[in-house]
Amino acid sequence: MSLLVLGTVALDNVKTPHGERRDMLGGSATHFAMSARLFTEVHLVAVIGKDFPEQHMKLLKKMKIDVSSVKVQDGKSFRWEGEYKKEDLNSALTLATELGVLVGFDPHVAQHQRGISNVFLANIDPDIQMGLLSMMKKPKLIGLDSMNLWITHKKPSLLNLMKKVNLFVANDGEAKALTGEQNLIKAAKALRSFGPEMIIIKKGEHGVLFYSDKVKFSFPAFPIDEVKDPTGAGDTFAGGVMGYLTKVNKVNEKTLKAAIIYGTTIASFNVEGFGNEKTAPLTMAKVEKRKKELLSFITY
Amino acid sequence: MSLLVLGTVALDNVKTPHGERRDMLGGSATHFAMSARLFTEVHLVAVIGKDFPEQHMKLLKKMKIDVSSVKVQDGKSFRWEGEYKKEDLNSALTLATELGVLVGFDPHVAQHQRGISNVFLANIDPDIQMGLLSMMKKPKLIGLDSMNLWITHKKPSLLNLMKKVNLFVANDGEAKALTGEQNLIKAAKALRSFGPEMIIIKKGEHGVLFYSDKVKFSFPAFPIDEVKDPTGAGDTFAGGVMGYLTKVNKVNEKTLKAAIIYGTTIASFNVEGFGNEKTAPLTMAKVEKRKKELLSFITY
Repeated sequence: MSLLVLGTVALDNVKTPHGERRDMLGGSATHFAMSARLFTEVHLVAVIGKDFPEQHMKLLKKMKIDVSSVKVQDGKSFRWEGEYKKEDLNSALTLATELGVLVGFDPHVAQHQRGISNVFLANIDPDIQMGLLSMMKKPKLIGLDSMNLWITHKKPSLLNLMKKVNLFVANDGEAKALTGEQNLIKAAKALRSFGPEMIIIKKGEHGVLFYSDKVKFSFPAFPIDEVKDPTGAGDTFAGGVMGYLTKVNKVNEKTLKAAIIYGTTIASFNVEGFGNEKTAPLTMAKVEKRKKELLSFITY
Repeated sequence: MSLLVLGTVALDNVKTPHGERRDMLGGSATHFAMSARLFTEVHLVAVIGKDFPEQHMKLLKKMKIDVSSVKVQDGKSFRWEGEYKKEDLNSALTLATELGVLVGFDPHVAQHQRGISNVFLANIDPDIQMGLLSMMKKPKLIGLDSMNLWITHKKPSLLNLMKKVNLFVANDGEAKALTGEQNLIKAAKALRSFGPEMIIIKKGEHGVLFYSDKVKFSFPAFPIDEVKDPTGAGDTFAGGVMGYLTKVNKVNEKTLKAAIIYGTTIASFNVEGFGNEKTAPLTMAKVEKRKKELLSFITY
């Protein structure tokens, strides 16, 4: 089984109370792939500019991520600049966004990838997400993530897309904004009514809520006392969830719980370092060790 | 085994998106006792004014709560008036506080109650809490709750008191304010260093974090889609925790986890109605039923 992810591959400038980094390898699809590759073959669909550092592409290839559908286009790579304040490490302040080659990006999926059964539409313009979906033959499991920007400016496109996916992943703020519900259980119900059979609401340091007609559960996050840079934690989480589900090729209560525990575990590494500092060197042995610690923390 | 609680017995005026109630039976010790009485004999230490409605005292007695150390004093009963806005049902806006007989309250514990082994100091002035403690013979398990008002205005008294208790219960905002730490794990560690062997940080709808040197765990809250009035949820939770620990008369990882699950379960009823609407008629059968649902929601 393999997994295809569409999203952004970016250059990130990030400032947190623990320091500052420039031109890091970032983007929703990057963080997702860096996590999912621990479980399965990952195919990345994205666009970069000609200015994109060779070392970043090298790292992705070294991680065995298939980059054959990463377009290199004339122009500047997508850039994001953000800051996290000591008072609230859960929410990023976006200082600047330079779309660059993202403007007019028309994703292209190589022929050999169009039959891939599991697809994740990481955060990017919902019209681009829909474009990708129309290129895939018969996906079995489709996951979707979005963000407030699209909820505000492209709600009809997003709602249309939600009818076509199986799993919708949102953080608590997005879930509230999209549904108008302040209560997360009500928000999850409302999101379910928009189409996706499975809803995951990410609550940052407070963990995750899973909602479907038959199964509902919640797990706390792994307790991290030194959050260095939370950028990409949600994508890393989603990569673990989809990666594990792809590996076991079965979606039921048991595999969903395990998938979310893996996603939670890998996301806890992500926040301990800037960018991919901690996830790029990650091995399944380290993941299994921390997963054990997480389970002892959450088990009754 | 029995349990003694010191705190406020109040008249509450509460407004939430679900309605408004006036002159309700409220107060930290009331909510605590209403929950703890499900497990053990509860002795209440508090003060009320001569204006206190007879029906409220009748209800406490009907619940088999020992009110022999509830002082009736000349003057007005303590009143709290608060509002919860739709946008954030987790935090109360205090509209008015009338201290009344609370001013100069000197708790008196009847002789037959001074040997009680388990004591909970529910939210009230830390100097009053210390006064009560000095009256008890040899308490085995002492729990303590406080609030931002005392953290701001009586920090030395509170810190002094913390050295004498075993279990400290705080909500996330209080834990951050008292320690200056934004990260809850760091905040829990810092609180531990102030004296209490066991720290419980309550995160409202996000559940609970438990921290001690040897044992650390976290459970989500029971998912409630219609929160009517969260007033007293934290006290109700603490009542369940201390009530259960008193009943089993043993503090270890197993009993602590069970205690927190019971506290979480009973608190979930509290928020479903105004004041004691849902907790006064509560039976252990109903608690056990919901506890089962909670466990299926949080179990891996």
